[in-house]
Amino acid sequence: MKSDPVGISTSRMIELSREESLALLAGVPMGRVGFTSQALPVIRPVNHLVDGDTIVIRTHTGSALMHHTSLDEVMVYEADHLDPLTQTGWSVMVTGRARLITEPLQADRYRDLLIAWIDRDLDEIIGIQTELVTGYRLNR
Amino acid sequence: MKSDPVGISTSRMIELSREESLALLAGVPMGRVGFTSQALPVIRPVNHLVDGDTIVIRTHTGSALMHHTSLDEVMVYEADHLDPLTQTGWSVMVTGRARLITEPLQADRYRDLLIAWIDRDLDEIIGIQTELVTGYRLNR
Repeated sequence: MKSDPVGISTSRMIELSREESLALLAGVPMGRVGFTSQALPVIRPVNHLVDGDTIVIRTHTGSALMHHTSLDEVMVYEADHLDPLTQTGWSVMVTGRARLITEPLQADRYRDLLIAWIDRDLDEIIGIQTELVTGYRLNR
Repeated sequence: MKSDPVGISTSRMIELSREESLALLAGVPMGRVGFTSQALPVIRPVNHLVDGDTIVIRTHTGSALMHHTSLDEVMVYEADHLDPLTQTGWSVMVTGRARLITEPLQADRYRDLLIAWIDRDLDEIIGIQTELVTGYRLNR
């Protein structure tokens, strides 16, 4: 804990290991996926599950997300649990190639495990590889 | 409300106007900024304030965020309030050019209004223009 010039205490930022980061990510239901679409950065909140070295999310056919997955593009996935009142919590960021999961049994299993939140056909399953994993905790 | 094939109800996605979206964004203390750094997408959670047509955030000298701001680069800012239990809430996404705010009086005013959460020198003030604003609400 440290005071800033106006006397308000701030939090310490503590780096997390890959293992700690992935455990935190696996423990929450949602995060935000980031990618580049038509030269512009895009962020979308989605729900996820973590299966081994893959973050699994759903999308609909024709989405910008889907379009970029077909190119084996690198995406970022961020999840956090930060309390604005105490200014404590954690954030995890994963960067890796995204691919469409097309193997029918595997895709069906993920469709069962990862319930769509919205009334659209979120039929496509995307896996993001956990290639680069960083995370931090904010402590008082 | 609609049921999916396994009988679990899902939420309806309702588009928000620019005004509704910016009002929701202004009403929460934090969001996530997205940009491209060394050809990779990056997402960082930050606290913000909305001042007219600008989203104001803080960063430290030498950050990746800062580096890209100097190039008048386009960034995305996303904020949401989504409840994983009820699968309702909202998300807002703003896309626009980011610039460093260097005018001393204006920068000082923002430094007073926007308290740094962490014990680093978050001396630099970045303004993201609200050029493209989209948002939706998930209702039951």
